[in-house]
Amino acid sequence: MSGLKGLFIICDGMGDRPVEAYQGRTPLEAANTPTMDWLAEKGLVGFMDVVAPGIPPGSDVAHLSLFGYDPCTYYTGRGGFEAAGAGFDLKPTDVAFRCNFSTVDPHMVVLDRRAGRIGAEAEGLAEAINSIKLNISGVTFDFIHTVEHRGVLILHGKKLTRAVSDVDPHKTGARILEANPLDKTPAARLTAKVLNAFTAKTYRVLKDHPINKEREKQGTPPANIILARGPGTLPQLVPLPQKFKVAVSAIAAVALVRGICKIVGMNLIDVPGATGGINTDLNAKAKAAVKALETNDLVILHVKAPDVASHDGDFELKTSVIERIDVMIETICDRVDVRSTYIALTADHTTPVSVKDHMGDAVPFLLSGPETLPSGVTKFCEKNARHGNAVAIRGPDLLHLMMNYMGKVSKFGF
Amino acid sequence: MSGLKGLFIICDGMGDRPVEAYQGRTPLEAANTPTMDWLAEKGLVGFMDVVAPGIPPGSDVAHLSLFGYDPCTYYTGRGGFEAAGAGFDLKPTDVAFRCNFSTVDPHMVVLDRRAGRIGAEAEGLAEAINSIKLNISGVTFDFIHTVEHRGVLILHGKKLTRAVSDVDPHKTGARILEANPLDKTPAARLTAKVLNAFTAKTYRVLKDHPINKEREKQGTPPANIILARGPGTLPQLVPLPQKFKVAVSAIAAVALVRGICKIVGMNLIDVPGATGGINTDLNAKAKAAVKALETNDLVILHVKAPDVASHDGDFELKTSVIERIDVMIETICDRVDVRSTYIALTADHTTPVSVKDHMGDAVPFLLSGPETLPSGVTKFCEKNARHGNAVAIRGPDLLHLMMNYMGKVSKFGF
Repeated sequence: MSGLKGLFIICDGMGDRPVEAYQGRTPLEAANTPTMDWLAEKGLVGFMDVVAPGIPPGSDVAHLSLFGYDPCTYYTGRGGFEAAGAGFDLKPTDVAFRCNFSTVDPHMVVLDRRAGRIGAEAEGLAEAINSIKLNISGVTFDFIHTVEHRGVLILHGKKLTRAVSDVDPHKTGARILEANPLDKTPAARLTAKVLNAFTAKTYRVLKDHPINKEREKQGTPPANIILARGPGTLPQLVPLPQKFKVAVSAIAAVALVRGICKIVGMNLIDVPGATGGINTDLNAKAKAAVKALETNDLVILHVKAPDVASHDGDFELKTSVIERIDVMIETICDRVDVRSTYIALTADHTTPVSVKDHMGDAVPFLLSGPETLPSGVTKFCEKNARHGNAVAIRGPDLLHLMMNYMGKVSKFGF
Repeated sequence: MSGLKGLFIICDGMGDRPVEAYQGRTPLEAANTPTMDWLAEKGLVGFMDVVAPGIPPGSDVAHLSLFGYDPCTYYTGRGGFEAAGAGFDLKPTDVAFRCNFSTVDPHMVVLDRRAGRIGAEAEGLAEAINSIKLNISGVTFDFIHTVEHRGVLILHGKKLTRAVSDVDPHKTGARILEANPLDKTPAARLTAKVLNAFTAKTYRVLKDHPINKEREKQGTPPANIILARGPGTLPQLVPLPQKFKVAVSAIAAVALVRGICKIVGMNLIDVPGATGGINTDLNAKAKAAVKALETNDLVILHVKAPDVASHDGDFELKTSVIERIDVMIETICDRVDVRSTYIALTADHTTPVSVKDHMGDAVPFLLSGPETLPSGVTKFCEKNARHGNAVAIRGPDLLHLMMNYMGKVSKFGF
């Protein structure tokens, strides 16, 4: 079984529901997808509860699950994945937070959670933030500006915890919140104290910062405070390369997904033109995947575009994105040896165009390769997936099934 | 997604097995059920292991599971649900027992576990029992006569536990048992001591009670002792209205089911003519459900009749009961807006007419509403359920699926 390869394609938010205005079809059902259909017919087809029936997964939870790590055990909060996505090497004792550059008035009432969607200017403000001294129990920090008004705060200390509440009130017109310990440990008290001190100090160094003075002059909201939320730590897990003795690379543009890929031990591949948006260069992704399969056992290929179309509630856009993904897969199949390559294809969750948000419906999947049982399903879609030959599995099962076919799973017992 | 409603219909013991004398059909398969079939065709269909494959659930465990609470975590003994079903507001520190009025000889050998199925007369005896003083570590109690020879004992104290064995030997001709602590805690020792004292004192106040003297004169067995079994406490759970931010009411006649409904936070609706028996007024239940859906997000509709027919082993009676339930559902569908209502239908367990008792086979279910994927299953029954589009789920999943479609489930992760 040596030389067997795996390509795991994740179409973000591709799962959907029947839409009456389109003859009760789903976007995947309406799309012309000859390559997916060919893979489906000769491979395993079924539906998958990414976490459990009726549980809508967030992007972080969904990917953790698809990568084989049950989120009930391994999910340790958003912040850790966010920090990894920003390229930061988190230590097991670090606690990381998602942050916004925000605008508050002198009474700490939020005027704009996104400080007028500040962009590159936030770089200069981040420098000022990193000059802050906390002087509490030796805790230090790093602050990273990521994109637009977003950033990540990483607290370093030996006795910190993610059991603290958010500072961000998640709405404008409300006062910022005091971080509170969520359990009775000294670590929770310390982390809350540090976070509150950090928040106050960011206001102090930002409110009169020249960049903000200039913004006020121009009539744009000053980014005068950092509001943290979503504390997280590094999950303690056995990374994929060790777990299955495989070389794994990931092609993904979205920072959060990249963070999860990194934490589970994948090598990250940068693809120029891969944007995470609707107009991402899928051909470039296809070529990058083919190249990556030459030197890796397993390649993850993540495409954000279906989810973007879903959040817009645009059935036809979603359908055309799915058709472009089909062409991408055709390009790959034309260039790899399909007699030694297993291809898995699924969605990380359902984002119905009717709802425009993640839902907990099951998603269709396929796993097709040299030795999979043929399902005989001639059109890959939600309805047919439910009549396939591998119903029904949970999120962590698909990668395990793939690794099983690739001969990478150790026997359980003797 | 506001305004979406859910109706969850539980047909007690409806699941069955193929019966040779009826062309290998099950009662559900043999029944003419056009409305269930219509719901099945346009909705999710599958089979469900209420607890796990091959585990026959009791009524209490089954309902707890169907209401979304994994019984492995949340089942805290029968007594608590029994007390809630008797209308008692249990405190977290109370321990409750199911009880029988029984007949023993002076050597404490059980002559009749049900004291000649004593009825209304037990009321007077219950009064005498409630005059008992325990005088042990400040423990007090309430005793409630429920129906026939049955009652509930609720012990009040701060250091009690349900880790004690039954006093009821569960057979005639045997001596009553001494309650023993089931672990080494002082609480278990105290509870066993209290229960043994209570048992002895019931014999003392009952044996010469005028009601019993009169019964003996009439040649009926005196109800001269209370035998307790099935200790239970109030499970610590987040009630449904808080968990999903929904208003929930339940229509159920059976006391135990009402108890569980109450404990998980449902408002109980009384329906005159709903008896929990074969001849229950299903039309009245239908109308009550329609009315309840006007002011609730979720309505539970429990029908005991199929289980009653099953315990009698009567295939044809069970079939006709199922047909009457189908008419009940038709009445409801005619009167609610099916474009905004999700209907779930299942059994809490299988009670095969061949076995006349709860079994651990999977049960069929359907979930049908405005955005469910159509299964194409044209006849709702055990055999077809296994070829549906949502196989296979566990007990707590169905409610979660329904809440997901109703937009009531929070995302797990970001």
